[in-house]
Parts: sequence; structure tokens; C-alpha cells
Amino acid sequence: MARPKALSGFPEWLPAQRVIEQQLMSQLQQVFELHGYVPLETRAVEPLEHLLAKGETSKEVYLLSRLQDDEGANSEADGNQLGLHFDLTVPLARYVLENAGKLQFPFKRYQMQKVWRGERPQDGRFREFYQVDIDVIGADTLPYHFEVEVPLVMARALAKLPIPPIRMRINNRKVAEGFYGGLGLSDTQEVLRSIDKLAKIGADAVVDLLKANAGADDRQARACLELAQITGETSQVADDVRALAAKYDVESQLLETGLTELAQLLDAAQDDLAGIVIADLSVARGLDYYTGSVYETELVGHEDLGSICSGGRYDELASDGKNTYPGVGMSIGLSRLISRLFRQELVTVTRATPTAVLVAVGSEDERAASNRVANQLRERGIAAETSPNSAKFGRQIRYADRRGIPFVWFVSAGEDGSDQVKDIRSGDQAAADASTWEPPAEDLAPRIEAAQD
Amino acid sequence: MARPKALSGFPEWLPAQRVIEQQLMSQLQQVFELHGYVPLETRAVEPLEHLLAKGETSKEVYLLSRLQDDEGANSEADGNQLGLHFDLTVPLARYVLENAGKLQFPFKRYQMQKVWRGERPQDGRFREFYQVDIDVIGADTLPYHFEVEVPLVMARALAKLPIPPIRMRINNRKVAEGFYGGLGLSDTQEVLRSIDKLAKIGADAVVDLLKANAGADDRQARACLELAQITGETSQVADDVRALAAKYDVESQLLETGLTELAQLLDAAQDDLAGIVIADLSVARGLDYYTGSVYETELVGHEDLGSICSGGRYDELASDGKNTYPGVGMSIGLSRLISRLFRQELVTVTRATPTAVLVAVGSEDERAASNRVANQLRERGIAAETSPNSAKFGRQIRYADRRGIPFVWFVSAGEDGSDQVKDIRSGDQAAADASTWEPPAEDLAPRIEAAQD
Repeated sequence: MARPKALSGFPEWLPAQRVIEQQLMSQLQQVFELHGYVPLETRAVEPLEHLLAKGETSKEVYLLSRLQDDEGANSEADGNQLGLHFDLTVPLARYVLENAGKLQFPFKRYQMQKVWRGERPQDGRFREFYQVDIDVIGADTLPYHFEVEVPLVMARALAKLPIPPIRMRINNRKVAEGFYGGLGLSDTQEVLRSIDKLAKIGADAVVDLLKANAGADDRQARACLELAQITGETSQVADDVRALAAKYDVESQLLETGLTELAQLLDAAQDDLAGIVIADLSVARGLDYYTGSVYETELVGHEDLGSICSGGRYDELASDGKNTYPGVGMSIGLSRLISRLFRQELVTVTRATPTAVLVAVGSEDERAASNRVANQLRERGIAAETSPNSAKFGRQIRYADRRGIPFVWFVSAGEDGSDQVKDIRSGDQAAADASTWEPPAEDLAPRIEAAQD
Repeated sequence: MARPKALSGFPEWLPAQRVIEQQLMSQLQQVFELHGYVPLETRAVEPLEHLLAKGETSKEVYLLSRLQDDEGANSEADGNQLGLHFDLTVPLARYVLENAGKLQFPFKRYQMQKVWRGERPQDGRFREFYQVDIDVIGADTLPYHFEVEVPLVMARALAKLPIPPIRMRINNRKVAEGFYGGLGLSDTQEVLRSIDKLAKIGADAVVDLLKANAGADDRQARACLELAQITGETSQVADDVRALAAKYDVESQLLETGLTELAQLLDAAQDDLAGIVIADLSVARGLDYYTGSVYETELVGHEDLGSICSGGRYDELASDGKNTYPGVGMSIGLSRLISRLFRQELVTVTRATPTAVLVAVGSEDERAASNRVANQLRERGIAAETSPNSAKFGRQIRYADRRGIPFVWFVSAGEDGSDQVKDIRSGDQAAADASTWEPPAEDLAPRIEAAQD
């Protein structure tokens, strides 16, 4: 086989990078489980009709066909055309409907899986990547407090990772819709579409758009713009919106409900996430889709990446005609985040191998003795390898050095016949007993750390 | 959406089952890492030409096409027709060639990923399933001792799981080829093909086959049969084969090399895997493909499942013309194993949720106080949920009970204003402080156990 080339859009990592990815995922998992989220994994494929139920994403689907299909192209004996899932929400909705009778509601689950999008290769986008989702699904009802819980769990999980700090920006569909409605603007979607362009085209152009497309007069357009400019870290932000509403004679029960909700989330964030969870009334993306809270997350200093973790409340994740399942969830675009961390070397790992100790081999006849020492260390949780060769010790030490293995063990090498262990970073060597010796805790396993500036 | 039905061949688990799968995988991972194997994950897709390089498996490939492909069916701008990988060996070979310059050899890696096979749905086989592989890859050379290491690592990993005991049966291509050659039979493949039918068709029929297809006379056929009937737990087995060779005047340097190797592996297994790793000279499957050791693994009492973990030594995993990469590896068919465990309820889990403590909520006004208690517990590694409702405590306790959450916490519920924690299994209730209370270690997280007979 000629030397293969990487496939554009299908990222693969070197072992050291995979260690970082794995540890980031395991740290996220730990926080999710501490909050009682259960693990879920769904199959990679869905019937095409489910994948296309939302219409818009039809371009991105990878279809499957069997190479030697004996029933005609793309057919399946059970009549299903299958495609790879492009997110974890469509499979969750289907899984909940399929297993509703066996699940406990509210159903809190996390899910960390690859998803696939049939992007054009030349677009430079990922075609296979990890998403990490948490969702809470209710049966028919889902109390608002889960709209508080989900972003706080995600913010806690992301804030603990050894990555640049995050900023989670929140908004609420009820605030936007209530405010616009109270102003006399009924086409919420169109207003949101214009507001969403604020950062890109500026305030004046947005006012023009609102007038041209959303039927706003000058006063209404200015009011929408002022709303979008409100941000804040505490529930004071609700009063700021109330003051703006009063200024423009806006009265709306929906607005008041939204503000109460927004304030509740900001209050809850004060305990351990003050300044990390921020209300930003300009957040418009997702508000046309979600029905309550909406969340976006930036990596501070890397705002150009866009949102690394988004989500919100949807009143109808799934419905089978008899029951409706509302939900609230967030999704991390993990591979995109990680690929930025790698490209800019923002996270480091102390070594690329789990091995803490290389047990040297004096000669092939002594390999069994070295293996026994390695097993003694492993039984006490210390990762050990026996040297692959019995070359000169200098070469065996270089083997350890190239892999970042911190310790090399020499069996019966002391003058008194004791074993010796050498820290190859410092050169320090001392007598050691494989049934009691411990490496320093920080050397036990590879550790990931935020890169120092 | 109408209630969806399960897709045949694409298994999905309920949360309690997923907890079991996850813990089994994490226990395997731990053993692999203790032996210095690095984690690897490859993309799910490979160019079709790589997938078909071995020919035989062409029927099982799932091809990908983009739903709205603007360059014609199944085409990709970069000329690659892509398919889903059907094992983890083909991707490993490609990955090693692609990244050879950046890897350290011998390259020891583990890999746990879904693979896909485009089986006919009516065959009742899995079309998506987990494989768990370990391999050691050398650059140009790979010492025999890795053929000893790999099965011992796998046997240790599998023997530690809370599943029925395993039996690993080993053989060596050099023994078979050397013995047959010494007998005067040159068509090793054909002899192996006949011997492989021994369990199915019996000794006499195998003798007939050997005479009809492998050109054996009666004496040669009997000798092959006697070889296949040799088994043993210690290196004594090598002497048994030597005695048989002497009886039939077989002399072969290749046979002697193979016996020395086999004995070395059996000796190494005596320390901690005696009686688990067994030489069985009837193991023929894989010997036509592998070039040295070959391994198969049965679940004792579930031999009908076939081998749950197989592999062997291959002198040429990959080659780019300049370098050749020999390897030795084994692969667990994890989903098939797990599906047997589930169907026969051979493994149980203490609960289906990570949550150890449900913090009750007296009224919605007191939810924030309950959240603070839950956070205090989480900060000390105790998984906690706040009750989703503030209904009567009896209902909140039932919520915990249905999920198997062992403890319910009542904030400020004691006569002295202290918090109270109730073990809902025993009904015992006591004062507790969220900054110091610990659940019994066995209740901290869901635990998996072998089912009691």
C-alpha cells in the first residue's frame, strides 16, 4: 500500500492528543455523573425519514448502502433507507419515543459520540466529529428549574477543564417575543433574524433591516436595538429590561414571565459561576427554534471559534401523538474545540503513554524476572512496561526517554542485590522494592494541563 | 412521529445496560493502560480500496454517499469512495503507514470503537458493534516475546471482569507447518482446513478429508489427527508433540522453533493464568492467515458463542514498499459478548443512575437551599440530584426508589434544625452534615457484579 494521505474533514489524533481528548471527555463525564445524568449511547444510523423530519439539514446526511446489495441500490429488506446521524438530538428523540415505557422521567442523560455530516470536502469543515450532549426530557411537562440546571452543569463541566475560560451567554425566547409583541411587532422570527446580524453589520443597518423586513417603525426598531444592547451578570438585568419596557410603554405578561425566569437562572449562577453565566439580550440564534431559554458559550480569547456549546429549551422534542416530550439540552462541539486547543497548543500532557515505569531487561534470560516486577507494580495500580529489548541499559533508558516514561527499574542491580529505580529526568537512583515503591502521585498517570503563557 | 421500532442488527441498550457496558470497557481500558498500551481512535471511514485490499470481506462493507451530492452518485471531490470500517485492523494498518514517522515503535495501542458490517438484515447478525483491540506493531522486526505478552494482557483483562470464566486456547503456525512438512505434507492450508472440521464431523471423516484433499496417506492422516488431539496447560505439551514427532519420524527445525515458542508462552502463563491459557493443537482457524501464534477465547459454559476474543501474529500488517510492519494483536467482539451477558442476566448493576443522594425539596422556595446541599456533596465526589418536584416527601422517596438511588437527604429536617439523611433501603435516618457525610464506599457509584447462581 502506498503511504496513505489524511482524509479532509475526518480528523485523527496522535496518541498524545488522544490522551488529551480522552481525559477531557472523562472530566466532562465525571461532572455529568455527579449531577445524576445517566450514560446513553445510540446507534450511529437512523432511518432517513427521521433524519429529514426537520428538513433543513438534508444536505448534510451521509446515506448508507451495502456494497453487494442483492435487493437493489440503497434498499434494505425492512424498507428503511439508513443514514448516519448528524447530531445526537434526533437519535435522542427517537430513542425516547421507542423506549418511553422503560425510562424514568424526567430522563437526564449525557451522550458523547461521533456524528457525521456529508459536507462538501472543499469546505474544510469536519465531516466526522464528537458531540457531547446533556439533555433533560420530561413526559408532557418539564419544570423551568431544569432550564437553570442544564447550563449550570455545562458551565461547571467546561469551567473545570484545563482550557481557556468560558463565557456562557443566555437569553430567553419569552423575553424577546414578549417585548416585541408588547411593542406591536408580531413577526418575532423576522425581528430575531435582523438582530442576529448586529455584530456583523452594525446598529444602523439593523434598524434599516427591522424597518424593511419586520414592519417596524423607527421607534420600534430603536427599542429592539436597545433591548439587544442589554447585558448583565446578575438579575439586575431583568430590571434593566423592565425599565426599557416602561420607557417604550411595553406591557406583556410573557415578557414578565421571561424576565422572572432569566433572573432565576442568573441568581442560581451567583454561587459558583458568577461572571461566567451572563445574560445577553442580543443572543438571537436559536431563539426561533427553542421555546424558552437559549444558551451559547464562547471560549474567552477565542471568540472567532463561535459558540463551542449551545442549546436551549424545546417544548416538543418528540411526540407520538399520545405523549409529548419537552426537553432542555446543550451540546458541545468537542472536536472543533479540541482541534483549536491542539492547533494553538493550549493544553499539554505530561506524557503520551500511560507507562510510569519501564522495567529494564538485563538479558533475555532475565525477561521473566523483569515481567514479574512489572506485574507487581501493576497489581498496585502502577502502569509498567517491560523493556522490548535487552540492549545496553543506555539504549533502554533512551527508549523510556523518547516516550516520556519517567522511571526505569533495574532488577537486582544494587550492590546488595536490591532493585534500583532511576528517575530519568533528574538522574536520581535509589533502592526500591516492587511490593511497596510508589511514584509521586503526579507521575502516576499522564496529566493534562493548561499551557502556560 | 409514530412510535419507532428497533432496527435489526443495531443493538441499543437501556441506561442500566449502558452502565454495565461502560464499566466493562473501563475495566478493560485500565488493564491495557497498566501494561503501557496507548489509546488510539481512528476515523470511522476508510477509502473503499483499503477496505477491499483483503478481498474476502467485500460483501460486508457499508458505503457512504452524500444525500445531496452535487458531483454524481457516490463520488467525492477527492476521488475517494468511502466506506465504514468493518474491523479495527484495517484502520490500524493504514494509520501506522500514514503516521509512521510520528509514532514510537514497537507501537502498543488499544482501541475500542464501533465497527459496521453490511450484513443482510435477515441474518440476525449485528451490523453495528463494539470491537476492543490491542496490538503491538513493530518497525521491520517484532520480537517473539510480544506474542507472549498480548494474550496474557487480554487474559488478565478478561479474567478480571465480573463475567463467567474464560479459557484461552493457543496454537502456533510454526508447529503445524513444521509437523505437516516433516511428515511430507506440503499443503498446510488444506490440512488446516480439514483439521478445522474435527469438532463438527469427527475423527474418521477428517481422516477421509485429509486423504482426499491434502494428499495424505493413512499414516500421515492419523499423525495429523493425533497432533490435533494434543492439549495441555503447561510446557509439557511441547514434549508431548516431540514424542509424537519421534513416533512418526518427523524432524523439522520449524517445528522445534514453534514448540520452543509455545512452551515459552505456557511457562509465562503459569504465574497468574495457569489453567486459563491452554495449548490446543486442534485450533486451526486463523493459522492460514497468521504467521506465528494464534489465539481463541471461549467463555466457559458458553462455548456455543464461539470465540469472544481472537487474534495472532502477522508478519506483515502493513507495508509501504520501504518498510514492513509486523504485528501481534487480539480483538474482543464486545457487543456479542455483552448481548449474551444481558440476555442471560449474567451481570447485574446495583443501580441504573450515578446518583447516590436525592436531595429532597420542601417547597419550590427552598429549592436553592437543596441545590446548595447537592453541590456540597458533589464537590466531595458524591453524585447528587435535587428532587425534580417539591411534592410530598413520600412521593420524592418513591422517585429515588424507582431509580435505585439509595439515600434521600432532607434539609434542616431534624428537631435541632440539622439535615437528615435516610437510607431508603433500610429506612434508617440520621443527622448529617453535607460537608462531612460519606455514603458507604459500595454505594458511592453503581457497581457491576457477576450474577449469583
